[in-house]
Amino acid sequence: MTAPAHNAELALLLEVAGTPKPGNVDRHRDLDDLRFDHFLAGAVGARPGLDLAASGAPIGPAFERAVEGMAAHGENSQFGALLLLVPLVRAAHDGRTVETVVEETTVSDAAAFYRAFDHVDVFVGDPPAELAPLDVRRGSAAIPALEDRGLTLYDVMDRSVPGDDVAREWLCGFDRSFAAADRLVAAEGPLPDRAATVFLSMLADRPDTLVAKRHGDAVAAEVTDRAGVLSERDALETDPAAVEAFADELVDRGINPGTTADLVAAGLFITLDHHGVSI
Amino acid sequence: MTAPAHNAELALLLEVAGTPKPGNVDRHRDLDDLRFDHFLAGAVGARPGLDLAASGAPIGPAFERAVEGMAAHGENSQFGALLLLVPLVRAAHDGRTVETVVEETTVSDAAAFYRAFDHVDVFVGDPPAELAPLDVRRGSAAIPALEDRGLTLYDVMDRSVPGDDVAREWLCGFDRSFAAADRLVAAEGPLPDRAATVFLSMLADRPDTLVAKRHGDAVAAEVTDRAGVLSERDALETDPAAVEAFADELVDRGINPGTTADLVAAGLFITLDHHGVSI
Repeated sequence: MTAPAHNAELALLLEVAGTPKPGNVDRHRDLDDLRFDHFLAGAVGARPGLDLAASGAPIGPAFERAVEGMAAHGENSQFGALLLLVPLVRAAHDGRTVETVVEETTVSDAAAFYRAFDHVDVFVGDPPAELAPLDVRRGSAAIPALEDRGLTLYDVMDRSVPGDDVAREWLCGFDRSFAAADRLVAAEGPLPDRAATVFLSMLADRPDTLVAKRHGDAVAAEVTDRAGVLSERDALETDPAAVEAFADELVDRGINPGTTADLVAAGLFITLDHHGVSI
Repeated sequence: MTAPAHNAELALLLEVAGTPKPGNVDRHRDLDDLRFDHFLAGAVGARPGLDLAASGAPIGPAFERAVEGMAAHGENSQFGALLLLVPLVRAAHDGRTVETVVEETTVSDAAAFYRAFDHVDVFVGDPPAELAPLDVRRGSAAIPALEDRGLTLYDVMDRSVPGDDVAREWLCGFDRSFAAADRLVAAEGPLPDRAATVFLSMLADRPDTLVAKRHGDAVAAEVTDRAGVLSERDALETDPAAVEAFADELVDRGINPGTTADLVAAGLFITLDHHGVSI
């Protein structure tokens, strides 16, 4: 048992407990196919993989183990969040920067990442034709192509940017995760309430890439613009009903800014683990 | 990482996610001094102690470790639930009955139980004069008196009955925990919803001993009678607003049937671990 794994699991739980988090499962909302209890089981199930990362295991196998446990009940609740948390936990173990940790990933880490897709359905778009052999939806079947090209997990993330803001964190020093943490630390009140506030502000900063992949750039831009208006006028304080209505509308429309939630989970980990903020 | 510890931690989370659970913290309600996020952190914090029990450690030290982690943020969220879960997890490890496991506890287990009170404030009433040296509120200061009398942890539980229905489980083969599990297995829907249904039916069966200690027998009897009326007419299905109103009223009056919630958590563990029900 190590503190970073504890904090990563708790970050997953605090993230989903925050409400309202427009479009996402939160303390007050389920989606049609994804419920609050899937996130609880996902967080507990991810723990052995997080413990691996916290004890110095390579990123890829630790991530695969975390995803396997998270998805033991068949739902993909926290795949993207774990792709941020596993390197952050490993970096906490090493006492190195997360940037260094992800840059040093190997082809073997990339193979484990592909195997993780055998455990769970993840929504991804079609790759360009030249990358079809590396389509993550092929899971472990893509590993020979991966090895032929000698791609590390960092290289795989590199090929997912732009268009995937979880992968972008790997390329950009986890800058939005750290920005989320700074905002979480500066906010007041219980951490789930801070998570809701910071979720809205992060959603206002950049279109959510999961929304863009599923619903197109126009919808993603609309969601970000509306989050911006609400965040700008501090609506969670001044007009909470407006945020609740926005949250209900996004759930009704099936619009799920899951990438932004992943970034908030990473920010919560940094808040707990680096900044020592406690419940 | 062992399945029983995983299931015990998940049981704690599913219990608090159930709503409405009249008088208790639930997915939709916080108390003045105890919030949902305290339960999330309590469940994650208890895990190392649950892991100890799952790997065969003695009950007392495993319980002390679980409580220490649960209460790391200063709140007592799940003390009673852990007093049920730790023996259940240990029994799962041993492949023996929980009845045997608790009967075989030692004076050393009792000493660890007393040390657990050094980590957290637990609401307990005044003991009779002849037991004042053994008042659990003395924490580890009471250990010499305990050792003088050669009391095991089972003996300590024996002296807490009647008046403490968590201790009663130790004496009566965890019969209400198993009854809760049978009802949880027979119910339908997501486990937190089943937990709410079973909570109401358990509250209807017997006055909650935490309510009796804090508010007197008359209030505990009133709460049980009203739960009985609601449970009898299946109000969670037929008139959910009536159960929500009862829940709000109990929270407003500061009436917290925490012992019944502890029994439901134990029942959830049995449901997951013995019956193999999954999310």
